[in-house]
Amino acid sequence: MILVRQEIGDVLRDFRLQKGRTLRQVASKASVALGYLSEVERGQKEASSEILASVADALDVPISIIMREVGDRISVLEGIQVFPDVVPDDLVASIEPELSLH
Amino acid sequence: MILVRQEIGDVLRDFRLQKGRTLRQVASKASVALGYLSEVERGQKEASSEILASVADALDVPISIIMREVGDRISVLEGIQVFPDVVPDDLVASIEPELSLH
Repeated sequence: MILVRQEIGDVLRDFRLQKGRTLRQVASKASVALGYLSEVERGQKEASSEILASVADALDVPISIIMREVGDRISVLEGIQVFPDVVPDDLVASIEPELSLH
Repeated sequence: MILVRQEIGDVLRDFRLQKGRTLRQVASKASVALGYLSEVERGQKEASSEILASVADALDVPISIIMREVGDRISVLEGIQVFPDVVPDDLVASIEPELSLH
């Protein structure tokens, strides 16, 4: 079963690391207990909508960006192809020369 | 403050109505109490990740689609422009005739 909290935790941690911030800094700015934020990042606790908004604000990342990233990662887990396959011409040529441009 | 549970509730309800299903049908299939699902749809209760997975399954909608829709709606609330503006030519012409094609 795909658990949204696991993906939310991963995304929050990735954004935090990308911005070079410590758990302590973000927890403090978001007024959230450090242990709680750590559990949320590890997917062990569900973040309430209020906590999520507060942490997103502390990370300077819009919630929409977080939720879209969560959706994108879950779509990979669900094996959903959102965009049509685009295979590079040279790859097509190497596999099926008869289909390549002459 | 933007609350994710409000958007999740709206999206779940919209998908349910789009599929012509009743609260009772979805609650039953997802093994969730009807009153609870109703509160989730109205943004009054946070759905746990397990409940969300169960309701998404009952609606036959991938969780990734639900989360992306949530992200899209929140981006509108946050006023984030993801795609460049594309203004229809006839609208441009009606507003600024001197800019329209001759």
